[in-house]
Amino acid sequence: MARNSDLFSKRLATIQKKSHSRVCIGLDPDPDKLPPHLLAGQSLVEATRQFLLAIIESTSDLACSYKLNFAFFEAMGAEGFALLKDVRLQIPDSCLTIADAKRGDIGNSSKFYARSVFEDLQFDAITASPYMGSDSIVPFLQHEGTCCFVLVRTSNPGSGDLQLRPTDNTLVYQHIAHEAVKWGRDQPGEVGFVVGASDIPALGDLRRKFPQVPFLIPGVGAQGGDPDAVVQASADDGALILVNSSRGILYASHEEDFAAAARQAASNLKETLWT
Amino acid sequence: MARNSDLFSKRLATIQKKSHSRVCIGLDPDPDKLPPHLLAGQSLVEATRQFLLAIIESTSDLACSYKLNFAFFEAMGAEGFALLKDVRLQIPDSCLTIADAKRGDIGNSSKFYARSVFEDLQFDAITASPYMGSDSIVPFLQHEGTCCFVLVRTSNPGSGDLQLRPTDNTLVYQHIAHEAVKWGRDQPGEVGFVVGASDIPALGDLRRKFPQVPFLIPGVGAQGGDPDAVVQASADDGALILVNSSRGILYASHEEDFAAAARQAASNLKETLWT
Repeated sequence: MARNSDLFSKRLATIQKKSHSRVCIGLDPDPDKLPPHLLAGQSLVEATRQFLLAIIESTSDLACSYKLNFAFFEAMGAEGFALLKDVRLQIPDSCLTIADAKRGDIGNSSKFYARSVFEDLQFDAITASPYMGSDSIVPFLQHEGTCCFVLVRTSNPGSGDLQLRPTDNTLVYQHIAHEAVKWGRDQPGEVGFVVGASDIPALGDLRRKFPQVPFLIPGVGAQGGDPDAVVQASADDGALILVNSSRGILYASHEEDFAAAARQAASNLKETLWT
Repeated sequence: MARNSDLFSKRLATIQKKSHSRVCIGLDPDPDKLPPHLLAGQSLVEATRQFLLAIIESTSDLACSYKLNFAFFEAMGAEGFALLKDVRLQIPDSCLTIADAKRGDIGNSSKFYARSVFEDLQFDAITASPYMGSDSIVPFLQHEGTCCFVLVRTSNPGSGDLQLRPTDNTLVYQHIAHEAVKWGRDQPGEVGFVVGASDIPALGDLRRKFPQVPFLIPGVGAQGGDPDAVVQASADDGALILVNSSRGILYASHEEDFAAAARQAASNLKETLWT
């Protein structure tokens, strides 16, 4: 859907109603995991381009969104950054696009990141880190029709080092959820949360407190989270979730059938998530 | 100094002893602040290149390091990313280089950011955000001779939203400082802290507790922090600090004398910081 002044969540709801898909496919092009036959006779950047475009073509009717992980593109230098833009522009309008950049800086710098992601690269959403507080996030909320998914409760092993610390009568991640919603008040863009599938009680608790907030949920697939439990905990009553799988779809096969295998993996996840 | 297996802090101490400079010059090329005459007859990317190379040429004997803010380069797209690399490679070996990227992601993604910054772009150090915990930081500690400056107590207005929250008998930023040092134990790379000049008591307190950790200190110059107070609070007994000024040096003049004005501003800061 071409970006317009409609709220991100409204556009997402429309797409999901039509596609019956809550699947977000994470494009994390790891050079060590590309199907080897693609690397024969061409550069890594070209092999990655061919790989990702085949994945998109094979899966876009099964997904409601794609999430591009900037780390993997930046590791290829300026050419990788150009590829990121090319790939993003090949994603059909029937899917929303998320810049998984986990940015967050003082206001003036965040403003430049936001300009890059929403204007130059035309993404619909971004992920951002809340460690620096309100003025590091608010610049990502200045573009109509976009969403800033704030890291709240992430799915990685070390996530509890800070996020599960007690603070007054709550935990750090719960505090951040409340703060993020406050930061988003009266801004043109929307606030979403990143909440991992690895902590189902946290997911359910956040959903009860924030029924209107779209959740971007990593941690199923290769990271081991249970898609059924995710849906039960967070998708009641029309609540919006985007469930991301990256490696579980992209690298379902390393052979010539990689695109068909990715389609099958995406289809399986789609069915599990829409019950 | 070409990167080698010597610790980052050892190389920094050697450079500072020779140059008597604790000045880190922040390269934040804001298109709205470039001297207008540079923009005549050439693209923004070329004007930015000319601007930054002139600044480096004019100031490198007064600085011990340069910090490149990725936001401003990425806002120029793939060409900006190529420019970032070109500019970084023009910085003489007499200065250390810091990738001000504020990265932080799950282990596998952080590993790719680390590869980009330390291998492709050959930086000596990076800034990183601790919200996601240990496994988001450890990949930035795998390169000998480099430093990962973890955001601890930042200088921006909203920094207290999370960093000043109480947690058990301490504050979040103090907890993160202790954690970060723990994460750095027995790794090939070193841990440093980002601590803003806007909170001198925090700076002094962290220095007392962590005499060996190099501090990257933003917030003087345009952000208003007092360089004298910074030195008093954090640079006793050979403790290592890098005091960053970006706008105060880069945009000291918007006229044809911009490079000379930047030199004067850098020289003033250098004198204040080395007493």
